[in-house]
Amino acid sequence: MEGMMDILDLAGKRPSEVRNLIRRGSWTQPTSGLSNGYTQANLVILPEKYAYDFLLFCQRNPKPCPLLEVLDTGDPIIKLTAEHADIRTDLPKYRVYRNGLLNDEITDITSLWQEDFVSFLIGCSFSFEQALLENDIPVRQIEQQCNVPMFRTNIPCKSAGVFEGPMVVSMRPMTEKQAIRAIQVTSRFPSVHGAPVHFGNPEKIGIHDLLHPDFGDPVIIRDGEIPVFWACGVTPQAAVMASKPEIAITHAPGHMFITDQKDTVFSIL
Amino acid sequence: MEGMMDILDLAGKRPSEVRNLIRRGSWTQPTSGLSNGYTQANLVILPEKYAYDFLLFCQRNPKPCPLLEVLDTGDPIIKLTAEHADIRTDLPKYRVYRNGLLNDEITDITSLWQEDFVSFLIGCSFSFEQALLENDIPVRQIEQQCNVPMFRTNIPCKSAGVFEGPMVVSMRPMTEKQAIRAIQVTSRFPSVHGAPVHFGNPEKIGIHDLLHPDFGDPVIIRDGEIPVFWACGVTPQAAVMASKPEIAITHAPGHMFITDQKDTVFSIL
Repeated sequence: MEGMMDILDLAGKRPSEVRNLIRRGSWTQPTSGLSNGYTQANLVILPEKYAYDFLLFCQRNPKPCPLLEVLDTGDPIIKLTAEHADIRTDLPKYRVYRNGLLNDEITDITSLWQEDFVSFLIGCSFSFEQALLENDIPVRQIEQQCNVPMFRTNIPCKSAGVFEGPMVVSMRPMTEKQAIRAIQVTSRFPSVHGAPVHFGNPEKIGIHDLLHPDFGDPVIIRDGEIPVFWACGVTPQAAVMASKPEIAITHAPGHMFITDQKDTVFSIL
Repeated sequence: MEGMMDILDLAGKRPSEVRNLIRRGSWTQPTSGLSNGYTQANLVILPEKYAYDFLLFCQRNPKPCPLLEVLDTGDPIIKLTAEHADIRTDLPKYRVYRNGLLNDEITDITSLWQEDFVSFLIGCSFSFEQALLENDIPVRQIEQQCNVPMFRTNIPCKSAGVFEGPMVVSMRPMTEKQAIRAIQVTSRFPSVHGAPVHFGNPEKIGIHDLLHPDFGDPVIIRDGEIPVFWACGVTPQAAVMASKPEIAITHAPGHMFITDQKDTVFSIL
């Protein structure tokens, strides 16, 4: 019975099977842990008139905005990172923003589709977290079964047209020794955020209270651990909302697009 | 006396000094070997109406088209990769194409500048060749003091709007052992073409005669050596010319833009 499906049933399923369930409305929960080992992506959909500025913003800020695929204008079909996938139906939940404000949260955007929509799929830290776990580096928010803590920094992104704003980072606590290994491991994944942007003193990048993240949930920092910060895919979303486009659609937090590409494909070493 | 300057005088000079000489018209020769250790870039200038398609073409084909910087529309001043540099005067020689055909070769494009021009700086294999040499891997065209041999392949680029075409590759001959090391060394430089795309049998990628390159000069392949092929920055230029824009400006072959960034900065490991 589909109503009884849980994450364990879907962890080992192929991405196309999971996307089929999502398309039929049989799975509307977060995608973390589904189709284990396959890359998941953030989504931003914008009208074409913003597409050049947004593409340029991503080009100028590749660490927080690692583009995996940009669809042709008006085309909802994914071409490069998945087969037989439709961007309008194949994510479990979407957020619709109008003039920069959250307007709706829905599981299918077919009725909202416009001929001038351009869809951007952006790399996500799920990919490198798998590699961290395989290297015995703790990922605290997975241990605590909550969302990763994310913070606005004082590091400005390079602006492009109407888009600008601070870099948003995610934080994972670990020992110095683990941090050194984590730098090595994540350096192999430049297309999914790559190496950290900072570690240690959070004040240096404008973060004043690690227990009160701007997005996501707080996690425990144990004795002997330091915070390690990675550029985060929330950065481009925040820049889009700040520019108040008449309409923008994104994935709902944690409800990502599951590609057909294995995480390991994005490792350059 | 400036007329007596040769490449040896300029190998150790800072990029800003060399760019000043170029701007004054005191150096109109190729830039290979100038400001040793600093990254040089390919240039493509297009009217704004082609800029989105070209940016998307580069995003979809990052190995042959590694973008280092895209200037704002109409702005000739480099912001990120160099200080106090002007794209109109700071390359020693430019090529002007009209409707896809070479129309002129000039040393200053100030009089041709248009308010709708967008300038793209694209990574170049000079950066990783330095790393190859430091690892005792031969770079035959440097030994032979000629241009690197380049070939059209049967590998299609992913098209974007009006831009499409085959990948162009550069070829360097070496032993298998050197090829293994070369794969390691160039993998560190994903933003300047990265690892090779092929080695060995040239027929497999549609190359029928290694002694007759489509661009550049032939080089000797010694006994015991195999050809190793890297994606080449001529790829985006070839795609632009095939689309016959009313005007496009590029660097003249070998006459590159010298950035303020050291090659080593582009190494991710």
